[in-house]
Amino acid sequence: MRFITGSKEEILGQLHRFSGDEVQAETEAVVKAIIAEVRADGDDALFRFTERFDGVKLTDFRVPQEALEQAFNQVEPDFIEALEQAKANILSYHQKQKQSGFVDTEKNGVLRGQLIRPLETAGIYVPGGTAAYPSSVLMNILPAKIAGVPRIIMVTPPGKDGMNPHILAAAAIAGADEVYQIGGAQAIAALAFGTDSIPKVDKIVGPGNLFVALAKREVFGIVDIDMIAGPSEIVVVADATANPRFVAADLLSQAEHDKLARAILITTSEQFGKSVADEVEKQLQTLPRVEIATASIANFGQVIVTETLADAFEIMNDIAPEHLEIQLENAIDYLSYVKNAGSVFLGAYASEPLGDYFAGPNHVLPTSGTARFFSPLGVADFCKRTSFISYTKEALAKEKDAIVLLAEKEGLTAHARAIQIRFEEEN
Amino acid sequence: MRFITGSKEEILGQLHRFSGDEVQAETEAVVKAIIAEVRADGDDALFRFTERFDGVKLTDFRVPQEALEQAFNQVEPDFIEALEQAKANILSYHQKQKQSGFVDTEKNGVLRGQLIRPLETAGIYVPGGTAAYPSSVLMNILPAKIAGVPRIIMVTPPGKDGMNPHILAAAAIAGADEVYQIGGAQAIAALAFGTDSIPKVDKIVGPGNLFVALAKREVFGIVDIDMIAGPSEIVVVADATANPRFVAADLLSQAEHDKLARAILITTSEQFGKSVADEVEKQLQTLPRVEIATASIANFGQVIVTETLADAFEIMNDIAPEHLEIQLENAIDYLSYVKNAGSVFLGAYASEPLGDYFAGPNHVLPTSGTARFFSPLGVADFCKRTSFISYTKEALAKEKDAIVLLAEKEGLTAHARAIQIRFEEEN
Repeated sequence: MRFITGSKEEILGQLHRFSGDEVQAETEAVVKAIIAEVRADGDDALFRFTERFDGVKLTDFRVPQEALEQAFNQVEPDFIEALEQAKANILSYHQKQKQSGFVDTEKNGVLRGQLIRPLETAGIYVPGGTAAYPSSVLMNILPAKIAGVPRIIMVTPPGKDGMNPHILAAAAIAGADEVYQIGGAQAIAALAFGTDSIPKVDKIVGPGNLFVALAKREVFGIVDIDMIAGPSEIVVVADATANPRFVAADLLSQAEHDKLARAILITTSEQFGKSVADEVEKQLQTLPRVEIATASIANFGQVIVTETLADAFEIMNDIAPEHLEIQLENAIDYLSYVKNAGSVFLGAYASEPLGDYFAGPNHVLPTSGTARFFSPLGVADFCKRTSFISYTKEALAKEKDAIVLLAEKEGLTAHARAIQIRFEEEN
Repeated sequence: MRFITGSKEEILGQLHRFSGDEVQAETEAVVKAIIAEVRADGDDALFRFTERFDGVKLTDFRVPQEALEQAFNQVEPDFIEALEQAKANILSYHQKQKQSGFVDTEKNGVLRGQLIRPLETAGIYVPGGTAAYPSSVLMNILPAKIAGVPRIIMVTPPGKDGMNPHILAAAAIAGADEVYQIGGAQAIAALAFGTDSIPKVDKIVGPGNLFVALAKREVFGIVDIDMIAGPSEIVVVADATANPRFVAADLLSQAEHDKLARAILITTSEQFGKSVADEVEKQLQTLPRVEIATASIANFGQVIVTETLADAFEIMNDIAPEHLEIQLENAIDYLSYVKNAGSVFLGAYASEPLGDYFAGPNHVLPTSGTARFFSPLGVADFCKRTSFISYTKEALAKEKDAIVLLAEKEGLTAHARAIQIRFEEEN
């Protein structure tokens, strides 16, 4: 792991930053062409792309409900049991995110309110192949369920040897209303514009490769999307009271995801930093995904040694990590120092994988510094707000002159007239 | 106005839909080039573009605080008074949108919570020229204020004859922390990437022309943005009990905005529809913005006559209008039929301009059918959520086997290890 030490300013100057330029222009052109073809040819284009990219010749995209039930009965009972427990935790956490509308009756003759309504359809993208994670199926679908979305459409690429039964079982447990075997940019285009087979949705969520990410960006505005996902990261803030073996194991759980993943320790103790780096090397060798984790640690693994804990938190906030572990005594006391982070894990036993799978908060989190402004996936992502007002004539009479004045100042005479006409004698 | 009658299915088949294709590829290329130049050359590029596009040679973008105070003293006192009243209404409405975080203590040894925090910086784009609306300054800045954003940056294009004092006065009233004279795609690029003069922000909101809209879309992900704005619209659902003069005036208040604006009446009474269409023609002739309003009405003005009120609401929901007026007796009874609309105006006296300027709900609303999934601008747009968890060793012990099972099923051994290592004897 690379060691960075010095004053806060020196460290901030040396941080590797995600520039967004990893996104290639050529891929963007390919994605645009795929989307245009799906818009023009609908299902025919989808069948062609599925044969070309997934190597599978389909005649129907819909996965029948019986296939989901079959998968549910086919996978190990203890896996089902574990998913059901995770589901209960995810539901009970997200239930608390539910928002209500309001009606305000402050002034006589005036109602002002806000409705909160579920989207009517949500599209959930679930990656295939080695990145097919049943836990992601739960994390993406369950908040939509709690929001009350009546039609949840899941799409996932077809496999050459059939569908992954663990993914289908998770879809059954989470309660997907319809599942379609379609992946890549073509799946995103189908969900955004609709085809004869695939319904048009209001919002597309879920992780995916570069094609999927660029396609989501491209259709943003035609439908809503969750966020633009980039390489993910963990920052652990720890001092010498922490257990270096725990910290190393948690850093590696991030590193095994992806060669671009970033695992960063920020500590006030160089000695502790060295112990963690040694542990990382030691534990690394025993991992099945040693090649991925080694590349991630070699390229992006960092131990940042700061002069003070306050500096540590300022640097962490500058990074704005997806996952933040605070392995300090009385870790919760430091929560108020956290400005930018997707999800925070407090103390020695709130290990990141606990949050990935089980505790309840969502594992779909803002990556690559976007925790400055994006939030974890949640119930609010599947709701929309509508404001409303109701005025009596008497209530409007009190405010009409000010409204007319403002409208006229902006040169919008018809706006002013719409108010004035209501007080003319001939009505 | 164009009349459309028939069954619900026949009407839905004839609706003009916004396709998004109005956005030209050439403009997109120009916008990308502007952004690249600002990223590469910073302020130098900004000075060049300002001279080229705005015809103004600047040496400094910052509008000094004194200029804001001067503007405040320079404009008419009754204008200030009207803006202050509007501000009070906007604040009291948006105050009710504030959300709190939570902590859940359902299980022994487990804390699960959510923090809600303001963004650290927000960038507010305010158009110049004829589309410079002081009311928009309030509508964009005040929700950020209530969210608690400590640094609110406003940008607006420079005018050849200096800055618009009404806009500056509104900025002072709303409480912009810094104002810069910079507009167009170059302003969006500056806010997204930062230059020596212009600070990098977390989120960019506010309306603008096609260049601004495309630039916002282009930088989405580097920063957050509010929404992609398209042509705006009003739908009035009314029956024969409504006053055709009121309805016509409200339709025209939308039509005077823009030649692409859509003003639509949906009614169960063809006779009433005719009265409204006649009134529109009559009132149209007296408007200063007659040319714009005439084009809007001729191209997009519609009277849709449905067989039932239920059909009327289904068609309205399909359109998903930015503004919805319900001019029926006991209008509030129909609120539950509204699935997709930005803002709803109930009854004969809740005229749309009342909401544009004064009542309190935001006038920055989802346009062009995006009310299916986007919401009015609000306090939530200037906040981010962060989840957190804390577990004792005992609490983790109860769940560890299920977590390990799920991690191993996903092939993520290091995730499983991070849990297991905490229960090994050698700790």
